[in-house]
Amino acid sequence: MATVSQEFDLETLIADTEAEILRLVGDHDDSTAGAYEMIRYHLGLDGSGAPSGKRMRPLLGLLAYASIAGDHAAALPGAAAVELGHNFSLVHDDIEDGDRERRHRPTLWALHGVAQAINAGDMLFSLSRVALHRLSDLGFSDAKVLRLMRLYDDELISVDLYFDMIGRKTAALIAASIEAGALLATDDDEVIARYRGFGWSLGLAFQLNDDLLGIWGAERATGKEPTDIARHKKTLPVIYALEHAGPEDRERLAELYRKAEPTGDDVTEIISILERSGAHDFTRTEARRHRDEALAELDAAGVVDPRARAKLEQIIVSVITA
Amino acid sequence: MATVSQEFDLETLIADTEAEILRLVGDHDDSTAGAYEMIRYHLGLDGSGAPSGKRMRPLLGLLAYASIAGDHAAALPGAAAVELGHNFSLVHDDIEDGDRERRHRPTLWALHGVAQAINAGDMLFSLSRVALHRLSDLGFSDAKVLRLMRLYDDELISVDLYFDMIGRKTAALIAASIEAGALLATDDDEVIARYRGFGWSLGLAFQLNDDLLGIWGAERATGKEPTDIARHKKTLPVIYALEHAGPEDRERLAELYRKAEPTGDDVTEIISILERSGAHDFTRTEARRHRDEALAELDAAGVVDPRARAKLEQIIVSVITA
Repeated sequence: MATVSQEFDLETLIADTEAEILRLVGDHDDSTAGAYEMIRYHLGLDGSGAPSGKRMRPLLGLLAYASIAGDHAAALPGAAAVELGHNFSLVHDDIEDGDRERRHRPTLWALHGVAQAINAGDMLFSLSRVALHRLSDLGFSDAKVLRLMRLYDDELISVDLYFDMIGRKTAALIAASIEAGALLATDDDEVIARYRGFGWSLGLAFQLNDDLLGIWGAERATGKEPTDIARHKKTLPVIYALEHAGPEDRERLAELYRKAEPTGDDVTEIISILERSGAHDFTRTEARRHRDEALAELDAAGVVDPRARAKLEQIIVSVITA
Repeated sequence: MATVSQEFDLETLIADTEAEILRLVGDHDDSTAGAYEMIRYHLGLDGSGAPSGKRMRPLLGLLAYASIAGDHAAALPGAAAVELGHNFSLVHDDIEDGDRERRHRPTLWALHGVAQAINAGDMLFSLSRVALHRLSDLGFSDAKVLRLMRLYDDELISVDLYFDMIGRKTAALIAASIEAGALLATDDDEVIARYRGFGWSLGLAFQLNDDLLGIWGAERATGKEPTDIARHKKTLPVIYALEHAGPEDRERLAELYRKAEPTGDDVTEIISILERSGAHDFTRTEARRHRDEALAELDAAGVVDPRARAKLEQIIVSVITA
């Protein structure tokens, strides 16, 4: 199970994760090739060279594992599971949000219709479970695999439940990825709890960063329009402004947010109100505070391989840019 | 874990299954009440007295377990899981098929929109997994619970894969329910294999029965219009007629099936062709053959509690009516 390099090179971790996923979503037989083809397309594993996701969740999970265990290979089924589970969620989100593009390519429902896309999402969900069963083949105990499954199941329920709520969906999946990595690497519940704390703080930091990008981010940076306002999403900047803006601004903001179809001018006015209220600065400060808390929690675990920690910090800094 | 009555009264088994499900989908807190309310509505557990499903899959699973173990209580988490998983599939199917009614009530997507309904379906999927974890609390070994999960995961993948294919979706879930019941009740792999065979034959019999009802069934009997033909479903009767009807009928049938929007007259003509070709009789004979094979396989297991067997036969006879 040892790898040649122990430098935790991110490219290697991504390539290994993708190979693990391809074990599951390769062509099986002619009759089912179409379904797997859709899934590979969505995952950016169709060989077209199209940009795929950043694979942030599997990277965090592998590095959490490696920071304790010193190697990443045995955690690859978990990394594959978390990436498949994340993409299940994206496929269904694209339908729910009516998004026709992701990473500059048509979304699955835009290409194949809602029915096929719902089904492809469901299949990604099932595949994320099948991925975990390979942990048994790699020698993890039944108790360990079952505990990991329970962690995923509980997190996924919370993700579904907080469908409409801020601060939970991204945070919950990132926290689960990191806790899962620690869970596979150690039986020390205190260390696992520290990693869970690390994961939650980091997840919240990512979520707040997304909130900022959803309003102020350049379309180029995220691959999608900054349309959180047009979509009436009540992310932290909006909630903050509704509570902390001046009385006139508060009233005007609430009024504009009630419009079913805000115009471009409405959106511009909303953004001005948010900025005047200090919502942007407050959210950025909060994102950075959670990021720093995350790293402090990680260090408090006291077991961290310094090379893996350096890579974790590299990812965090590169993602939290707002 | 012993129950007062060992007569395997179906009403009792259903009530116990519904109580097990309600442990999971009861109200949690105000913020998430809406999501659980949607789920209880779909499951017919909202106290409105609306007709719920037949609970056939949990009944089969409980009786398979009880036919070996002599009691049903310990298998209730498995029964809840299979009913939740089945309903996950129904919620998404209703969207995929554009069905606005199920059991004479509006479907979830018709009431709450596609986005909320996709999410409610996803939640049912997650809940079906959470249900299984209670088996650990009831004393089943980690190895047993994990093996059961693997069975479900593999079956669900096959259900997703065979999205467009006949004879698999209903059959796969029924087979899994029954195999799961046996798996919980015994460590004897030979007995488990017999029950798997029983489940597959029975599942195919149910599927063929559904194929008949989908074309020839009264709307009242099934709670839905007999629209398999209008929907271009290539179920066994159609496949049979395309191969066995006379040359002119075959050509005409293929032509009618290519129409995007068949008229009422087209559907009537298709049904006449199917009947002339012997498709109805062939399908009915096949359904009965699989039903009889199923019971023979069950008896061959050689461990069957006669009271549980009587109840299994009662369900089979009451469902396979076409």
